Amino acid sequence: MKEYCFGIDVGGTSIKCGLFRVNGTLEEKWEIPTDIENQGAAILPDIADTIQAKMQEKKLTREMISGVGIGVPGPVNGEGEIPRAVNLNWGYKHISKEMEELTGLVAKAGNDANVAALGEAWKGGAEGASQVILATLGTGVGGGIIVDGKIVSGAHGAGGEIGHANVEPEEAEFCNCGNQGCLEQMASATGIVRLARKELEGSGQDSLLRRGELSAKSVFDAYKQDDELAGRVVDQFAAYLGRALAIFACVVDPEVILLGGGVSRAGEPLREVVQREYRKAAFPSCKDTPIKLAVLGNDAGIYGAAKLVC
Amino acid sequence: MKEYCFGIDVGGTSIKCGLFRVNGTLEEKWEIPTDIENQGAAILPDIADTIQAKMQEKKLTREMISGVGIGVPGPVNGEGEIPRAVNLNWGYKHISKEMEELTGLVAKAGNDANVAALGEAWKGGAEGASQVILATLGTGVGGGIIVDGKIVSGAHGAGGEIGHANVEPEEAEFCNCGNQGCLEQMASATGIVRLARKELEGSGQDSLLRRGELSAKSVFDAYKQDDELAGRVVDQFAAYLGRALAIFACVVDPEVILLGGGVSRAGEPLREVVQREYRKAAFPSCKDTPIKLAVLGNDAGIYGAAKLVC
Repeated sequence: MKEYCFGIDVGGTSIKCGLFRVNGTLEEKWEIPTDIENQGAAILPDIADTIQAKMQEKKLTREMISGVGIGVPGPVNGEGEIPRAVNLNWGYKHISKEMEELTGLVAKAGNDANVAALGEAWKGGAEGASQVILATLGTGVGGGIIVDGKIVSGAHGAGGEIGHANVEPEEAEFCNCGNQGCLEQMASATGIVRLARKELEGSGQDSLLRRGELSAKSVFDAYKQDDELAGRVVDQFAAYLGRALAIFACVVDPEVILLGGGVSRAGEPLREVVQREYRKAAFPSCKDTPIKLAVLGNDAGIYGAAKLVC
Repeated sequence: MKEYCFGIDVGGTSIKCGLFRVNGTLEEKWEIPTDIENQGAAILPDIADTIQAKMQEKKLTREMISGVGIGVPGPVNGEGEIPRAVNLNWGYKHISKEMEELTGLVAKAGNDANVAALGEAWKGGAEGASQVILATLGTGVGGGIIVDGKIVSGAHGAGGEIGHANVEPEEAEFCNCGNQGCLEQMASATGIVRLARKELEGSGQDSLLRRGELSAKSVFDAYKQDDELAGRVVDQFAAYLGRALAIFACVVDPEVILLGGGVSRAGEPLREVVQREYRKAAFPSCKDTPIKLAVLGNDAGIYGAAKLVC
């Protein structure tokens, strides 16, 4: 009986590992450091070692394991290949094939943001939904699209790269991707700070934001205290994000839209203002699509990775 | 051996029917009128009759038929149900179930624009591709999204409703859907005329568009003759459409983007200008995604409908 599986979430500094039951119960989680020396040559062998050690510790045989799922920061295609992963110092790698050779277990790989969306759709904020959009609002804006319960990887592993949707054709500053006017420039933690800085420079108005360090958190904290200037910044953020989500909904018409990532810790006030702006622009039959907060936090990746193989 | 199938494309005035080999060869096509009297009660029985007549004529038994696929103008969900179809005077209908009962054959149903996309992905402009976006530029703007070779119907049958992506938050006029700033207001035949009318009113410049009847075709004809004012209209159209397609590509990252519908008959000059604007806004790894013209024309619907059942 294939009763267990592993979900692995590879980051630039640490690798999160989870041992799951195939029904989605997390039995145990732990971390190992990411060794990016030598073009990251040790990363997959280190994962294989920690899996084998855990199997020994728990007296699990290969026959009891449905497989190993792996989330990786980069454009993984549907076959588990990646052309490069900058944060891991990787060039081309056939992740799933290498992992199968290293462990003798079935292995599958996906992009980390996509895999997180799958985790949230499996056991998180969109549990039970098979059509989901997850927008991850962190340092950048990532995303994952789930259709019929599966990740949309896309032809170049760029499925769910919603942070680079062009939402402002008039934008003069450049995004990290080289384009101008990306959603990431408006709705990431750094994007919100950018919008706030512009607003502070363009206005003489007093604001809580003129005191202390400026961050996405300080903007939402001030917004919650009815700071007017912060309110204008949040309105801009929400208008860009809400309208973008409404456009994405015209494409895949999800059951649920999730907001995750560090910025989403601002919680209900953030969710509400995004939902308000979403409704304005959404196609009539999608106006009531719920916008919810992701709930699995940093564990979304290991959950989704596990789901790849069970 | 299931060697044949039927592809049916239901329109408001006529129903296109195709008898196909399961390999995609169109054996014969014909049309019957759409009887929308009596809440369209005769539509499905009429289709069942014409199918049975064709089977008799061709001496085909049920055992030889893999099924009947049906494309319908309205929000069909993944189970083949529709809440209403305005152009057919239909209220709620479980299309596939009713058709199975009427014919004794396997039946499946989809939205007509989605089904056309499936047809183009099967035997048309995107033959062989399993990730496709089709934008149908007609009286309105419709669309279809194909992921892993299958239609994305969405949670409310609104998958691929790309004509209602909000591309202009500043738009004052209303779209038929009740929103303001929809892609359909910029990139449909009527949308292009609307843009042209604004440009003609706002400028004293002479133009071929000031003579004869104004239509999407006359705009593109004048554009091909280097008419400056028409050029500005086409630039606006292409900027809206190209940027919208770039956003959609961030969501599903297709192998091919297709342009179909009556407006796309303007051909290569239209394709080129849309591709140019698409490239400006597209995520780097999607910039070279080819934008092609659809090729099946009015037959895309019967091809795609047939593909639903084979």
